[in-house]
Amino acid sequence: MQSAQPQYPTKVFLNGRIVDLQEAKISVFDRGFLFGDGVYEVMVGQNGQFYFIEDHFKRLQNSLAKVKIDFQVDSLFPHLNALLQSCSIRDEACLLYIQITRGIAPRKHNFPQDASPSVMMYILKKALPGINKSPLSVITSPDKRWLQCDIKMISLLGNVLANQIAVEHKVYETLLYRENKITEGSHCNVFFVKNDVVYTHPADDYILNGITRQKTIDLCKQIGIEVNEKAITVDELYKMDEAFLTGTTTQIASIKKVNDHFYYEGSTPGAVTAQLQKAFKKLKLSKFMASSN
Amino acid sequence: MQSAQPQYPTKVFLNGRIVDLQEAKISVFDRGFLFGDGVYEVMVGQNGQFYFIEDHFKRLQNSLAKVKIDFQVDSLFPHLNALLQSCSIRDEACLLYIQITRGIAPRKHNFPQDASPSVMMYILKKALPGINKSPLSVITSPDKRWLQCDIKMISLLGNVLANQIAVEHKVYETLLYRENKITEGSHCNVFFVKNDVVYTHPADDYILNGITRQKTIDLCKQIGIEVNEKAITVDELYKMDEAFLTGTTTQIASIKKVNDHFYYEGSTPGAVTAQLQKAFKKLKLSKFMASSN
Repeated sequence: MQSAQPQYPTKVFLNGRIVDLQEAKISVFDRGFLFGDGVYEVMVGQNGQFYFIEDHFKRLQNSLAKVKIDFQVDSLFPHLNALLQSCSIRDEACLLYIQITRGIAPRKHNFPQDASPSVMMYILKKALPGINKSPLSVITSPDKRWLQCDIKMISLLGNVLANQIAVEHKVYETLLYRENKITEGSHCNVFFVKNDVVYTHPADDYILNGITRQKTIDLCKQIGIEVNEKAITVDELYKMDEAFLTGTTTQIASIKKVNDHFYYEGSTPGAVTAQLQKAFKKLKLSKFMASSN
Repeated sequence: MQSAQPQYPTKVFLNGRIVDLQEAKISVFDRGFLFGDGVYEVMVGQNGQFYFIEDHFKRLQNSLAKVKIDFQVDSLFPHLNALLQSCSIRDEACLLYIQITRGIAPRKHNFPQDASPSVMMYILKKALPGINKSPLSVITSPDKRWLQCDIKMISLLGNVLANQIAVEHKVYETLLYRENKITEGSHCNVFFVKNDVVYTHPADDYILNGITRQKTIDLCKQIGIEVNEKAITVDELYKMDEAFLTGTTTQIASIKKVNDHFYYEGSTPGAVTAQLQKAFKKLKLSKFMASSN
């Protein structure tokens, strides 16, 4: 089960200018196109504001530092309002995508000396799915990605191929495992619950440390749910009491079925998952209340 | 030591048309730009012909099959002459680059249903370096790339970062090792010689099976040099008698120094390396003689 068909934006911010979609073109010598040499960020929002925007911008700055692209993300803030306006987005739910590449240069692997980073942003109207209205199915597959999954980079062919496995099996996500340990999904983090303890892979080089993942761990601590950043093994997968995905667009989504194993019958997720979903919804509402003060 | 500064071509073949460099632009929604979702090939030639072109096109077709992009590479053959002419390349040494991506679609990881592959090609005048005129130095670094290095894909950030290590250490190439075994370089294959036996990593998922690598193994067999497709370990690295790199633009290049270890003094490479360099030069000449018949 996949979410609604994706859409194009009407306008694109490209290197300082807001242009029509049809004009949003880059040189074939952009290193994003030749080498996947860039990083990105996705966030969602409403009423012209984006949830956890400081966290997302901080992570984007960190991703840039890790791949040594010299660009200050704060310079993008002043353009967000104009981009929202150009797309006629006011109070609607929306998604912001930002991509920064190393820029345009003749093709050669190493960093070019004179290139300036290319910056592309767009905002789409996008209603997020109601939390867990449809319990999800997932499938497992070996994690073949590189060893720096902590970097939110655009060299994503490994994720693309992993995600395609889910689509071909008509499930929402592919859970990846490396050396018998569950790492994360192709575009989500994954959590498990056993005897009221929440487990998730530690935020090392094997996973992308999702903002929703971080918020979920914070919520566990606030609520008083024990959380253990420890990977579970493939052998333990079917022994867990609950499982859920986290992600910016996925939010906190209950996993009903992994491969042929059901975590529950019917449509009511486990108690811990449901508690976190409720707390996350409240956190997002409080964020907006706070920012609109 | 790096080779000469790279250049832009004057003309680019883009989706069926030959355009000026400045017009060679693609949508920011090309999946090559958003996901590194594409494959490529590089070959070199002279007198309007390309060395081992059938091998390169066959590998490109294989790369496309591995990532499930539906495109017939034979359809590109008829455009090569026009592209050569548009760049005023006649008998000069030159380089052909071909890149094929999954095409343009709204951003979503899985394969889009209606996208047509994007095709980009260019040809550059490029004189190849005289074989091994400057013995090379290399450095070692952990191989952090994904587990399908057999695919010649454009999601190359891992290779970019590995190559940059070489540049920052003022050496030609970074030799990568995974689980204590030398795999390959950031953009070359690597061979070693010990007691007149040639060793190189087997052509599995951990390396890109270079055309020059394949030709070198064939040459060993023809000449009667024993060849063993077996990875050498990091511990064995300094115990080897000779070492050399292979690649389309690198050709067969003797490694004089790895990290702080010298394989030889002066500028004369080892006997086996020299023999293979000579045989490879002869093979390339014979290819051109054959194709011009």
